[in-house]
Order: sequence, then structure tokens, then C-alpha cells
Amino acid sequence: MGILQRSLGVIALAVLFVYGSPALASDDRARQPLADDFVIAIHGGGGVRKRDKMTKELEAAYRAALRQSLQAGYDILVAGGDSIAAVEAAVIVLEDSPLFNAGKGSSFNREGIHELDASIMDGRTANAGAVGVVQGVKNPITLARKIMEDTPHVMMAGEGARQFARSAGLELVAPHYFWTERKWKSLQRRLQQGTEYGRKPRQASIRDSGSSAWGTVGAVARDRYGNLAAATSTGGREGKLPGRIGDSPIIGAGTYAHNDTLAASSTGLGEYVIRVVSTKLMSDLMAFKGYSAQQAVKASMQRVVDMGGGVGVIAVDKGGEVVMRYSGRGMYRGFVREDGEFVTGIYEN
Amino acid sequence: MGILQRSLGVIALAVLFVYGSPALASDDRARQPLADDFVIAIHGGGGVRKRDKMTKELEAAYRAALRQSLQAGYDILVAGGDSIAAVEAAVIVLEDSPLFNAGKGSSFNREGIHELDASIMDGRTANAGAVGVVQGVKNPITLARKIMEDTPHVMMAGEGARQFARSAGLELVAPHYFWTERKWKSLQRRLQQGTEYGRKPRQASIRDSGSSAWGTVGAVARDRYGNLAAATSTGGREGKLPGRIGDSPIIGAGTYAHNDTLAASSTGLGEYVIRVVSTKLMSDLMAFKGYSAQQAVKASMQRVVDMGGGVGVIAVDKGGEVVMRYSGRGMYRGFVREDGEFVTGIYEN
Repeated sequence: MGILQRSLGVIALAVLFVYGSPALASDDRARQPLADDFVIAIHGGGGVRKRDKMTKELEAAYRAALRQSLQAGYDILVAGGDSIAAVEAAVIVLEDSPLFNAGKGSSFNREGIHELDASIMDGRTANAGAVGVVQGVKNPITLARKIMEDTPHVMMAGEGARQFARSAGLELVAPHYFWTERKWKSLQRRLQQGTEYGRKPRQASIRDSGSSAWGTVGAVARDRYGNLAAATSTGGREGKLPGRIGDSPIIGAGTYAHNDTLAASSTGLGEYVIRVVSTKLMSDLMAFKGYSAQQAVKASMQRVVDMGGGVGVIAVDKGGEVVMRYSGRGMYRGFVREDGEFVTGIYEN
Repeated sequence: MGILQRSLGVIALAVLFVYGSPALASDDRARQPLADDFVIAIHGGGGVRKRDKMTKELEAAYRAALRQSLQAGYDILVAGGDSIAAVEAAVIVLEDSPLFNAGKGSSFNREGIHELDASIMDGRTANAGAVGVVQGVKNPITLARKIMEDTPHVMMAGEGARQFARSAGLELVAPHYFWTERKWKSLQRRLQQGTEYGRKPRQASIRDSGSSAWGTVGAVARDRYGNLAAATSTGGREGKLPGRIGDSPIIGAGTYAHNDTLAASSTGLGEYVIRVVSTKLMSDLMAFKGYSAQQAVKASMQRVVDMGGGVGVIAVDKGGEVVMRYSGRGMYRGFVREDGEFVTGIYEN
């Protein structure tokens, strides 16, 4: 790690824990990371419950799950592991929880089936792996990593992706594994109301969508070697058409990582994020316009919001600055650095 | 169309017909487009046959197919039609030809199945549609457009995409429709040689791949109203794993269009193009660094080449400048403007 980079790490790197509001207002808190500090940040989706529907017990459960996810990443990073392993481990915990719209807790599509999307990217090598609309795979993020590491491909989808998961020895599960009462009831309400989808992208704004419509989980990390990585996983938009792929498995949309700029993971209505090529836009704003990670995330999110979409983002830059920002009422989120101080959040504090 | 835009159109806009070489050398020819000139450019893939395997009869057939594709787009544009309709029409002709790796002439995957990818993007609205690994749909580009216009989604894949195609009334075909002797023999050779795929992306360089490995078709256009559009369609990489999705249906990778910058369509080893987020990078280089379309295409392609991938690109910018560039031995290509002078090319002239 060069002197310059080290200095930047010490001088510039605030933890920017940006609390969103509809106007994307910010309220930054700063502290100094160590020079070779590692950091992992996670999100459990921007589609949080309304405050009046959040009990204390439920909030405690969410925070415990976020904490457990951070711990999984922390354990890897503190032992000198790579950022790519840390983000995978953190996402696996969120996929295995019924609380988030990914893995176990995934939303149903309009036919009552779970089709899962995920991707992972290594900022050191620009290697990437992604999976779309895969059924019956317990941990899509692990499948995405396997595609990255054990095939010549970046992205696989559908039945072929499941076949590959089987041949790679990944854990397969029956459809009932993904059945949760909350998601099932939510789908029934949506189908009754006829709000499973609008006819056009612009009609499917966040206003039409319940909280379960745009959950996603993700993790970004910087390891001790300065390498960045990002991972995103989702059950996708509730009531989606069979075969629909969102932004989560699209490199440059839901997930992007490059050591020269940032690692970022999005949550939101994926159709807008895809069209903005949102996370790649962040990286390019940093590379070509000299934006900070915070400025880049804000500018990219504004484009999604201007189109009518809701969006949340977590990002970490090469110096370890963390950005967590959302346009809705909250975002399940958290981060931890080398000091082991675990921070989790849901609403504006 | 504003005065400024009009002036830019007249002053700046050369036809940049860039002949590629391994070093991406350029040999530009310029002429002045009309102020409200329309233009459509197409490619039939960068994986062209070696010169000594190209007979006069075969070359004539390729040029005739390219001409027919351009004519389909031209007819729409000259009648005052939109760029989005023109690129779809041009790509349909290439999909229906057995000569190119898209639609009818698609490569087989390693199991002898055809799984097709396509996408389309409207630079005026940033609306986009994409389809991955769909089987049995005669014209994937039309399916991509249907997804854009008649669903709230951008991307669909696999069986769900086929179901939607059926419900939308698109023409479905049996597997034998896509069977061509040339592609079948090529797959057999590849399977015998064990070169159907390398273990890792970086080992799967263009050097390992025969000409049929990376064919793709695409079209970009600027209509009389200054609106840009891009479309890309492919059978994907020969010998690919079932379920593999390449760059063609990824918005920002194989296809991108925005009225403020350019419309671009890529051909090449998609795994590299995805990781570079190649066409979005071009757009951002123009928007944030002031690059011309030619400079932006060149810089983005260089990143793909530096990773070891082969790539070809066609692009048109808001003023009607056309860029056609490739890193391999040639690219099936062509363009036509309002004056009706049809230009087609395969190798360096």
C-alpha cells in the first residue's frame, strides 16, 4: 500500500453514514479508520416496513440478522481473508434468514414460484459471476461465485444455472424451502388488488409497491490488502413475471467493483437501475469526474429517482470510505471495521 | 432540433469508418451528413471467416444479406419511422439469415441446443428490453422489444421468456429451425478438440476460438428526429454451457443508447465486454470526458483487448457520426444514410 494511498486512507476517509429522505438529504458522521483498516458494509434491502408495523421484537430480529451477517464477513477479514470471501459470507447469512428478500425469504413471482438473482464482483481482477432466475438453489451468491471461478462465463440463468449448481455440488432445496407465510400473504394481497405489475416500467413506481416489492441483500468490502468486492442477491420483485431478471445480477447495475474506484451494491426497483447502469455510472463519475464515492452514489441515485424509481445503495471506496444511502423510508443496513464496533440501522437512526 | 445540435451535426460529423487491425489502427474516411440526415449501421459479427475460406459466392451472399438488412432499416427511416423500429427491422433480417450467429444461424451450446440472447434500447427514453437464453423464439429482438413495451420489466430469460413470447403472439419455431450444417460441424470439431470452453475467463481468449465462436448481429440508428437506438442479437458463444448469458442482452455491455451520447452494439467474447461494461463506458467517456464517439469506442475496446478479449463495435452519435471498429480480422458490417448509398464491408476494405 503506497504512501499516497495510506495518507488518503487516514486523511480522507470518513464513515459517511448517509441517512436518506425523499430528498436524499444527508447527515454525515465521520471517524478515522486505521491506515490498513478493513471494512464490510451490508444492506438487507430498501423496502423496509412502515414504522408502525415494526414491533420491538421484529426490529431486534432484523438487527440480530444484520449483526450476524457482519460478523461472518468480519471473521474472514480479521483473519486476513479476502474481500470476495467476506462479501459472499455476509450475503449467505442474509440469504439464509427468512427476514430478507433473498434466498430463504425471497418474494414469490406472480405464479407463486421463487426465481432468484445474484452476482458478485472482484475489484482486483474485474472477475465477476452472476446468476439469474435460478430455482431451487439455497445460496445463489455461492453459485455466482462458482460461475466466476469455475467456468469461462460471467452469467448463467434458469435451468442451465441449476444444472451447473448441481454439478458443482451446491446445496439444492425443494420449492417449499422458500415458502414463508408473510411473503405468501403479501403475494395474495397483490394479486387480489391487481397490483402485481403495471403495464409499463414508468407506471411501476415505488409508490405502487409494498415494502416487499424491492427487497434485496448485498455486501461490499475492502480487505487489508486494499481489494474491493461487492455482492448482491435477491428474490426479485414480488409478483414479477416468470423469467424476469432484475438489476441484482447485472454487472454495472446491481453490482460493480473496481479497485480504482468503488464497490457498490444496489437495492431498488431494478428496472430503473438497469437502465441507468447505476453502479458503473458511480465508478465512471469517480474515475472521470473526480467525484468522491459519496458524490458519485448520490448523483447516480438521483438519476434513478428522477425516472421514478426507488433505490438504496451501499458502497465502499478504495480508501475504505463507506456510503449508505436510500431514497425510501429506510434501509436495513450495517457496517463494521477492524475495531469490531458493529453498527446497524433501519430507519433514520 | 436546436441550432446548436444542428450545427454540431453539420460541422463535426464525419463518417468514421474505422478499419481495425490487431493494434486498432484507424484509417478514417469522412463526408458531411445532411443536417437532419438519418443513418443506420449494422454488424453481422466480428468472428469472420479467414480470407482463404471466403469464396466469391459466399462473400456475395454475406454482402447481399447485409444490404437487405440495411434496406429494411432504410425503408423505415426514409418514411419517417423511428430509430427503434429501424434497428429492430434490420436485426430481424440478420436473425432470419443462416449466415450470422443470431436467430436462424445461431451457434449450438455444448449440449447441442440453441439458447438466444438479445436486447434493444431506445436512446430517447432510456427504455430497454432484453432476453437471455430463450429457446424456440424465431426473432429474439422482437421479443426484447415486446418486453420493453408490454411489460414493466427490462429483462427476461429462459422458459419464462418463452412463455411470454407465446402469450405475446410471437412466432415460435421447433429446435430444428436453428439447425445449420456449418454450425453443427463446427460444434463437433470443438467438442472433439475439447476447446468448447476453457476453465477460466482469462483462458478463453479469442486465440482459442474459431470464427464462429463470437458472432453476433446488431444495429444502431439515428432517425430524422435525432433519436438514437441500438439492438443486438446472438446465438452466443459456440460450445457455451447451457444457461450461459453473454453481453448481448446486458444493457451497458452489449447494447446501450442515450440521445445525449451514442447508440452502440458490441460483438466479441461477451465475458470481457460484460466486465468492462463496455458500451456504458463509451457513453460515460463522452458525457464526462468530452470524448468523441470514435475516441470513446476506441478507449473502451482497448480495455477489452487488454484483458485478452476480441471485440467489435458499431456506434452512432447524436449528430449521426458512425463508428465501426474491430480488433479481429474483420467484421461483417455496413451503413446507409438518407442519400441511399449502401456501404458494406467484411475485411479491411
